Amino acid sequence: MAYTLFYFPGNANLAPHMALEEIGVPYELALLDRANAEHKSAPYLARNPTGRIPTLLAQQPDGNEETVFETAAILLHLADNHPDSKLAPAPGTPGRGRFLTWLFHLTNTIQPEYRVFYYPEQHVTDPAHVADAKATAERRLCEMFALVDRELATRPYIAADHLTVADFLLLMLVRWGRNFTHPPRDLPHLGRLCAELLARPSVQRAFEQEGLAAPFV
Amino acid sequence: MAYTLFYFPGNANLAPHMALEEIGVPYELALLDRANAEHKSAPYLARNPTGRIPTLLAQQPDGNEETVFETAAILLHLADNHPDSKLAPAPGTPGRGRFLTWLFHLTNTIQPEYRVFYYPEQHVTDPAHVADAKATAERRLCEMFALVDRELATRPYIAADHLTVADFLLLMLVRWGRNFTHPPRDLPHLGRLCAELLARPSVQRAFEQEGLAAPFV
Ligand SMILES: N[C@@H](CCC(=O)N[C@@H](CS)C(=O)NCC(=O)O)C(=O)O
Ligand SMILES: N[C@@H](CCC(=O)N[C@@H](CS)C(=O)NCC(=O)O)C(=O)O
Repeated sequence: MAYTLFYFPGNANLAPHMALEEIGVPYELALLDRANAEHKSAPYLARNPTGRIPTLLAQQPDGNEETVFETAAILLHLADNHPDSKLAPAPGTPGRGRFLTWLFHLTNTIQPEYRVFYYPEQHVTDPAHVADAKATAERRLCEMFALVDRELATRPYIAADHLTVADFLLLMLVRWGRNFTHPPRDLPHLGRLCAELLARPSVQRAFEQEGLAAPFV
Repeated sequence: MAYTLFYFPGNANLAPHMALEEIGVPYELALLDRANAEHKSAPYLARNPTGRIPTLLAQQPDGNEETVFETAAILLHLADNHPDSKLAPAPGTPGRGRFLTWLFHLTNTIQPEYRVFYYPEQHVTDPAHVADAKATAERRLCEMFALVDRELATRPYIAADHLTVADFLLLMLVRWGRNFTHPPRDLPHLGRLCAELLARPSVQRAFEQEGLAAPFV
């Protein structure tokens, strides 16, 4: 199975990118020209009608091509398609429920809050309310990361006793808060996990290929 | 495998509740006393630290109990644990990627927007900005449902050519917008799907057990 990941440096593609590197499967990166809104162009929208980044194309054994979008869907799909990499408890095995719980929590709760933080003008109509929406999102994100940090006090990784694709999602989400007044990397357990993840060759390759410079989180 | 679903009538439990009925597996409903904030009580938080509804307990064959929360995680877990019910393309089979895409889209994009619509005061800090946040969320939800409706023009169900747990999630989300100025049930393809789902005995039993009266969507 060969993959193509449509990406823009530092965008939500970063998590699937780390997963592809960790799995070690052949893949290509396809850079989207965000400056010219290529992610809103007809060819991209034909694959991903949400017009958001990333999108994954999977070349299937039967020659057909499969399109997957939604960051966490891509992560889960990659983990389940490559069970040898052990990046998710397999369906039907102990721990699958907990793994799904935290993968969905990160994508359903923390990730959408970042859309408010980064695109606050889309979430209120009166321009005078934008600063409030943004500041409130930052405060809420800090509370959400505090909850994740308490969870990480109980086990080494967020969704299992071993590394899973949910950890790549979490690292990306921590990174997006690197300019907060209270950045999530400063939380003790999250900080510990990020340091460990950033030391992995797969993670370092993904950051380097996207041209991301320090500070990484 | 026996289950317990912690619920409050009409809350996010409705989707997993429909799935449990459709699967036909033994389960119990455990009503949360929302008026007395039982979902913020220590025993509930010990199972689900987000203090949100629903939570599923799964009695496993080995006697151990597994706790799963996040609505879409519960849905996926139920579908994968009961493959005979065919409520999800199995991992590794064609269509799994598309199924995950839409399940995650609904939970990552539409569902969090409803939190702004129903709890707008949590999303801005100045009370004078609350009405704007709520109205903007309603407008955004209408755009999101329009996208889903366009997708439903291309196939009978949202995530596959057959019924999946994602359809139960979608029905619940449509229901939550039943008092909008432009309710999502009025969109042609969504309306058609909702009518079909509401005619299913499983769906009718779940609505009846939660004491939900017409209009259902
Ligand atoms: N629910 C989507 C959201 C992805 C998302 O928000 N991507 C951002 C970049 S990090 C994007 O596409 N922004 C441009 C836009 O929304 O137009 C996912 O999880 O993949
Ligand atoms: N991400 C959660 C959200 C669930 C949710 O928002 N539940 C609502 C009821 S529909 C709730 O718990 N509201 C009470 C509260 O937030 O305190 C999920 O998908 O299960």
